Amino acid sequence: MISVGIIGGTGYTGKHLVKFCSNHQQVAEMNIYANSTAGEFLHDIFPEFSGVIDNDRIQSADQLSYDHDLYFVSLPHGSSLDIINDLISKGKKVIDLGGDFRLNNPELYNEWYGFEHRYKELLNKKHYGLADLYNINGYHLISNPGCYPTAALLSLLPVVCSYSSKIASVSVNSYSGSSGAGKSPKQHLLLSELYSNVKAYNVGKHRHQPEIQQELARCEYEGPFSFVTHLFPVDVGIYSTSIVHLKESVPEEEIRQTYYENYLGKIFVRLRNVPPELKWVIGTNFCDINITVNGSIIIITAAIDNLIKGASGQAVQNMNMMFGFKPSEGLITESQLEKLELKLGEG
Amino acid sequence: MISVGIIGGTGYTGKHLVKFCSNHQQVAEMNIYANSTAGEFLHDIFPEFSGVIDNDRIQSADQLSYDHDLYFVSLPHGSSLDIINDLISKGKKVIDLGGDFRLNNPELYNEWYGFEHRYKELLNKKHYGLADLYNINGYHLISNPGCYPTAALLSLLPVVCSYSSKIASVSVNSYSGSSGAGKSPKQHLLLSELYSNVKAYNVGKHRHQPEIQQELARCEYEGPFSFVTHLFPVDVGIYSTSIVHLKESVPEEEIRQTYYENYLGKIFVRLRNVPPELKWVIGTNFCDINITVNGSIIIITAAIDNLIKGASGQAVQNMNMMFGFKPSEGLITESQLEKLELKLGEG
Amino acid sequence: MISVGIIGGTGYTGKHLVKFCSNHQQVAEMNIYANSTAGEFLHDIFPEFSGVIDNDRIQSADQLSYDHDLYFVSLPHGSSLDIINDLISKGKKVIDLGGDFRLNNPELYNEWYGFEHRYKELLNKKHYGLADLYNINGYHLISNPGCYPTAALLSLLPVVCSYSSKIASVSVNSYSGSSGAGKSPKQHLLLSELYSNVKAYNVGKHRHQPEIQQELARCEYEGPFSFVTHLFPVDVGIYSTSIVHLKESVPEEEIRQTYYENYLGKIFVRLRNVPPELKWVIGTNFCDINITVNGSIIIITAAIDNLIKGASGQAVQNMNMMFGFKPSEGLITESQLEKLELKLGEG
Amino acid sequence: MISVGIIGGTGYTGKHLVKFCSNHQQVAEMNIYANSTAGEFLHDIFPEFSGVIDNDRIQSADQLSYDHDLYFVSLPHGSSLDIINDLISKGKKVIDLGGDFRLNNPELYNEWYGFEHRYKELLNKKHYGLADLYNINGYHLISNPGCYPTAALLSLLPVVCSYSSKIASVSVNSYSGSSGAGKSPKQHLLLSELYSNVKAYNVGKHRHQPEIQQELARCEYEGPFSFVTHLFPVDVGIYSTSIVHLKESVPEEEIRQTYYENYLGKIFVRLRNVPPELKWVIGTNFCDINITVNGSIIIITAAIDNLIKGASGQAVQNMNMMFGFKPSEGLITESQLEKLELKLGEG
Repeated sequence: MISVGIIGGTGYTGKHLVKFCSNHQQVAEMNIYANSTAGEFLHDIFPEFSGVIDNDRIQSADQLSYDHDLYFVSLPHGSSLDIINDLISKGKKVIDLGGDFRLNNPELYNEWYGFEHRYKELLNKKHYGLADLYNINGYHLISNPGCYPTAALLSLLPVVCSYSSKIASVSVNSYSGSSGAGKSPKQHLLLSELYSNVKAYNVGKHRHQPEIQQELARCEYEGPFSFVTHLFPVDVGIYSTSIVHLKESVPEEEIRQTYYENYLGKIFVRLRNVPPELKWVIGTNFCDINITVNGSIIIITAAIDNLIKGASGQAVQNMNMMFGFKPSEGLITESQLEKLELKLGEG
Repeated sequence: MISVGIIGGTGYTGKHLVKFCSNHQQVAEMNIYANSTAGEFLHDIFPEFSGVIDNDRIQSADQLSYDHDLYFVSLPHGSSLDIINDLISKGKKVIDLGGDFRLNNPELYNEWYGFEHRYKELLNKKHYGLADLYNINGYHLISNPGCYPTAALLSLLPVVCSYSSKIASVSVNSYSGSSGAGKSPKQHLLLSELYSNVKAYNVGKHRHQPEIQQELARCEYEGPFSFVTHLFPVDVGIYSTSIVHLKESVPEEEIRQTYYENYLGKIFVRLRNVPPELKWVIGTNFCDINITVNGSIIIITAAIDNLIKGASGQAVQNMNMMFGFKPSEGLITESQLEKLELKLGEG
Repeated sequence: MISVGIIGGTGYTGKHLVKFCSNHQQVAEMNIYANSTAGEFLHDIFPEFSGVIDNDRIQSADQLSYDHDLYFVSLPHGSSLDIINDLISKGKKVIDLGGDFRLNNPELYNEWYGFEHRYKELLNKKHYGLADLYNINGYHLISNPGCYPTAALLSLLPVVCSYSSKIASVSVNSYSGSSGAGKSPKQHLLLSELYSNVKAYNVGKHRHQPEIQQELARCEYEGPFSFVTHLFPVDVGIYSTSIVHLKESVPEEEIRQTYYENYLGKIFVRLRNVPPELKWVIGTNFCDINITVNGSIIIITAAIDNLIKGASGQAVQNMNMMFGFKPSEGLITESQLEKLELKLGEG
Repeated sequence: MISVGIIGGTGYTGKHLVKFCSNHQQVAEMNIYANSTAGEFLHDIFPEFSGVIDNDRIQSADQLSYDHDLYFVSLPHGSSLDIINDLISKGKKVIDLGGDFRLNNPELYNEWYGFEHRYKELLNKKHYGLADLYNINGYHLISNPGCYPTAALLSLLPVVCSYSSKIASVSVNSYSGSSGAGKSPKQHLLLSELYSNVKAYNVGKHRHQPEIQQELARCEYEGPFSFVTHLFPVDVGIYSTSIVHLKESVPEEEIRQTYYENYLGKIFVRLRNVPPELKWVIGTNFCDINITVNGSIIIITAAIDNLIKGASGQAVQNMNMMFGFKPSEGLITESQLEKLELKLGEG
């Protein structure tokens, strides 16, 4: 049993962290820290928690306790650097849900995030926590992947890592619900503006582009890459369609086998026979993936809940790995799992 | 042909005023005035107007020209008092789309609008422009009704004015899309908050309540009245369900006849045999109304586009009456009307 | 531990029954029966269950096993009469989620449901399972309330049962998401038709009207009553606004106290200080209620998930009462409850 | 002035044809023909037309008059072959809004449409009516492009026709609202199923794929091509994102110039500096396009109203060209255009 601090726990991501931790058999204690909402009660911020999760008072992030075993940090970009450095230097474990440690190369932060990165050593040692494909490296700082990169990398890494030299180009086309843009009021996020609407945005300029390219480069792919993000009128969810053009055909069965092997035993990735529907994954930590092969073209569709698999759920997966808990702990209810395993054991 | 000034022309209401005026055969000239967006081009604020309406530069409301024949004023509550007094004193005609002149009793402004009303004479003389039921009184200042009151009063006045002494109670239950709350960003209006959601708000405290009661009182009804407003997840539209409990039954046919007579020849009110659907009126100046009589209970459902019939469209109707233009001018396309009238003439 | 049969388990209501039962510590075994989908696998009908609930094959309702302790019946109106009579006569326990046993008076079925009711004895003995207010009467057949009546009765019964003689009129105005109309394809339920849209329907003719009136009559209220149902563009949820006109004022504090006492210790009704938002209850078995008193007018707003509190969740509550299980069993996760109770115990 | 027959005029596409024709100064007469709805009144099918368009009775398609100058045919795939052959052989002009004549190669119909094509001569002579880029060839049969191909081809043809030999691959990723799937009720099109949802469908198997490839081949591009279509939860609109990978870089300015030249004087294509928003074009005949060049990658985003630019609006454009009417006739209101042209003339 561990004690957990959630810093920045009153945004959309924080809400799910609170729920998952409250639901987690190994989390004995949880404190919620924030700045603007410090002093308020949890139920005033999230009235839906009334009667389900106890009504803690939000604590000030300035008066952080160092008594927790693990800290989830969910702060705006650029504002978690010092606090994370402080926690790590005190020997604490940290999972950062923001972007401040996602890129390995410190030079890139100026261009993509607009700040100078001062903690190069942390950048080198941190673990990029793509939980379904990467094993925890033992280090104390986990940088939780961005929402778009989670869907894109789970779609692409199996094929890119197996055939990188044969790939002519990679294109990722993603649609996100509005919650990905956060809770602070902006005109273009009003329902009045976004209902019935769609738009591409930040074309060629999205922060998640270098993040995806960094991980593709681990598998030696540094060829043509395009990434187009769109906002569409739902609150939650990412739908990601990736196109891989191969220089030459690869047998379809071989490609399917690659995905099958990569995700064997990974309970949170479900390979599908048809393109997934977004609603199959909403409210869950699943990433549903379908592969269609058309000659030398591979089309991969993937759906995730951007706030869960693309943020808080994956963070809890990383916590579970970090502490050796059961992978599904806190993310799938205990009695469902028991019955499921019972049946599987029989089968 | 007249010249028109639109003050506060870059909100949701202003947008439709601009469109209707650009579409109006009797509006020769139109200037758009605003504060925060002064100096910008119309197409930068409303890119959808590109290629349809010419790309005027928004002018500063501080440098208002007095050369227009008519001024539409669409400003936040409390901020149009002085400007309207100024225009009226210069002999100009004004249609105010805000709430600053809707209530007759100056004492009520403190309670409901939070400001002291300084122009009692204007209040007395102004015309409350419920265009489908009230005739213009010749005065230069028209106060355009609120969006909820438009739907509620068109639903209620025929029965209330015919049977006021027999009415036990009146209840109005209304649902509005988010655009009624305007374009400035607030958290509760984000798509992330409002999608899939509904909530009642300002119960017993909505500014439109005394406005409706004032007009019902003209017909001698001052009995029990309740008004509940809700926000629901569409951008545009109001659906209004009114319940009138009678002290004793009135023959259904008599009630239907009352509505029929009130709206005979009123092209923008369509009496329906079934409860209207909201989408029948979206993008139009129509108010669609259905009456169901159940013993001593009368149920009236009504649907309007809150930005058109509940604001800019009704304002144009009022302009048409004020200047003696054709009632439909600017609101229904000319060639449709010609064909329609041709056929009706034949019939 | 019991064994459960779900008859008609592949509609929207069935889906949640399956989920709640799979999640229930006291349900050892669950079989799903259906007609049109018999022979298919659960995961083909609900792909979202993959990896969470085991992939049972849907069994034919014609080959029903009599080995279960309890049967949930979720069939179209009129088609569960014989099957339920059969089960009851074999000594089985039944919770019917359809309307075939909701009305006590057999004469009413012809008018409101279009069939002749042949099982008058069952009608007399059945228990109308409004779980948060009515105690199980020991009989084997529970008729689970309709979705609209659940929200309306939880809103109204406290005040109606305390002040029935002082009530002048009761009006219920309800908005429902489309899932209330079921899963079989009809043109007016297409997203193309319903998006951005609202409409009142079945005004004065809705089957849930006599059901609500029947329960109000238990508390001696048989005065003026109106009920207007609307369809609005969300998939899930009911928002219910009730207006009670009193003949004379009652102190507000007294009314509030009535609600407080009625719902003391009822974990699934949450009294709110402000009108609830629909999203607070979606995905849960809660009914959130707010009371506003305005002189002699009482306004009650309530929100429920129509498929859960208005159907499957309330059915599970009834099962829990029937078998003496913990009230929240299957409906709130165990570890959340433990932590919540731990804290409450301390406080 | 001409007389027009609309065959299949009561679907979503037909509705807009009726509106545009009623709005058209050169259409003197219009008859609406249908099968399943023959005998009904227009206002019963489209209540929104009440008071705007006269209430014609739908005529039976079996009793077609041959007195019209032009026939719009909007029937399900495979069912317009004979009727069109009949009309053409009688010397009539026809615009087909279905897919029965879109592909030039008769061999392809079996594979993609599931029927044998019997009118090869018509196929050869017909004009594929991509109205903003192709000039009418004088022949009497116009095959109106599919909705997806309209957006894709207006996005791609300028660059493909200028640089076809330099193109490595073309990928089109499109999202459509549900109205593209028509008005007949199907379960997956219910609001209950599609709200909050997205899914890719017909990947590699969509009928519009060979149609797009056929037109790209006119400009000598027959290289790698992928096309992924998605359904997303709005009623109307297509958003299309095309990625062109070049074998080598081309100066960005040169590419922009190509688009500029192609669309010079084409009033219904608006080149944008930023990716378009879907709502800018809804309800209009515009296609809004943005080009972003990133080294050797060209990203083209485009938005259209699928029922207008992707069907009925483009059909009216084709009619205007066919008969030498003003290009905007019926599609932009007369008084707006006059004012616009007045200003442009001055400028």
